[in-house]
Amino acid sequence: MVELKEDERLDYLLAENLRIIQSPSVFSFSLDAVLLANFAGIPKRKGKIIDLCSGNGVIPLMLSNRTSVPITGVEIQERLFEMANRSIDYNQLGNQISMIHGDLKDMPALFGNDKFDAVTCNPPYFSKSEKVKINSNEHYAIARHELLCTLEDVVKTVSFLLKQGGKAAFVHRPGRGVDLLTLMREYRIEPKRVRFVYPNQQKEANTVLVEGIKDGSPDLQVLQPLVVYNEEGSYGSEVHRMLYGHE
Amino acid sequence: MVELKEDERLDYLLAENLRIIQSPSVFSFSLDAVLLANFAGIPKRKGKIIDLCSGNGVIPLMLSNRTSVPITGVEIQERLFEMANRSIDYNQLGNQISMIHGDLKDMPALFGNDKFDAVTCNPPYFSKSEKVKINSNEHYAIARHELLCTLEDVVKTVSFLLKQGGKAAFVHRPGRGVDLLTLMREYRIEPKRVRFVYPNQQKEANTVLVEGIKDGSPDLQVLQPLVVYNEEGSYGSEVHRMLYGHE
Repeated sequence: MVELKEDERLDYLLAENLRIIQSPSVFSFSLDAVLLANFAGIPKRKGKIIDLCSGNGVIPLMLSNRTSVPITGVEIQERLFEMANRSIDYNQLGNQISMIHGDLKDMPALFGNDKFDAVTCNPPYFSKSEKVKINSNEHYAIARHELLCTLEDVVKTVSFLLKQGGKAAFVHRPGRGVDLLTLMREYRIEPKRVRFVYPNQQKEANTVLVEGIKDGSPDLQVLQPLVVYNEEGSYGSEVHRMLYGHE
Repeated sequence: MVELKEDERLDYLLAENLRIIQSPSVFSFSLDAVLLANFAGIPKRKGKIIDLCSGNGVIPLMLSNRTSVPITGVEIQERLFEMANRSIDYNQLGNQISMIHGDLKDMPALFGNDKFDAVTCNPPYFSKSEKVKINSNEHYAIARHELLCTLEDVVKTVSFLLKQGGKAAFVHRPGRGVDLLTLMREYRIEPKRVRFVYPNQQKEANTVLVEGIKDGSPDLQVLQPLVVYNEEGSYGSEVHRMLYGHE
């Protein structure tokens, strides 16, 4: 049993055999969240994971399929936090995933520094200075634009929360790639693994996945290209597997 | 007529319809140089180009096919400088390309600051601290290892030489990607265009091409993947065209 409000739907996370509450007027997860949940290096049996900018909890839900360690999700929007909680209850994952309704910038004070083995974050993509029309829907506006936190806030917070040797994984637009990489190095999260996501073989990348290690040594690995659509215009085998669990 | 010394050969630059002097025991150009010469944004009719770490002059020679502006090549190894000069003479390009035998770090003093519209550089790939065996052949050792200049020397020099709004193009190993991007930003060459080169569709990138603009605004474009070999193990069409001038 699950309570659905207004235009909410109980969608499938097929590869994980889970369900998730979404709403076209409030929040629906993007492919980027799926890519990040598959990309992030996380501990399997020991340690602690935290996901910032959690939205409706899609990343904690997906990660729960790959690990038995506790996962904390942090979301500043009460409506999304509350959707995530109902999804967690529905999937009976309350003993593994806990959501916090709060500002990511307050998390180091709440948890203390150097507490997590892995951090994931799908932050807002657009800086305030960018000339991109801000969505008039407040929920989407906060999720997509740096209204309540900047990329620097995010990276700084992640660095505080991470243990030495811990891993942080981010997804972002390539346009902010240099900002992300330089901020990571500045805040002691050395970028170690990057993967570029191309809509198809002929197009520019529209997404970048980056994993860094706190106090890691400089040496960047650029993984094979992740091409979303094949020549026929349907999902390539790798993305298909992430979404449906088989080819 | 051309004088060939010791084990030198007069090889072809087929796509450019040029010849180039090479020697297996001294210096042969790599695919990376070909990729950089094709990637770099250069002025066509007005302006000045300089190529640092020129080796046997492969990049100035290849660029001459795309532009009528004067090109300067700088090479610190006398033997390579002298090979480049003979190739330039053989191709009758002495009115467009001039080689300088010298240290790149001395070039801003020689030319003055803010003088070039485009700079290209295929620098040594390995830092002194990396545990990579240094080639016992001195010519290859200097070309491949940061024995006579560091990446910071290179980027700093490029920035001095470049006009505001001028373009700098580099090729490097992905492992040094974060070093390169952060140094570029530090020395006011904002990275604007990146292309990753993958040996094939399933492999990690082994080369990165980066173009920056002096005092450009931050916004990185990640071009479509450049895949060197196709599934049959022969050159993909794009690389084939760079090497042979047709598909």
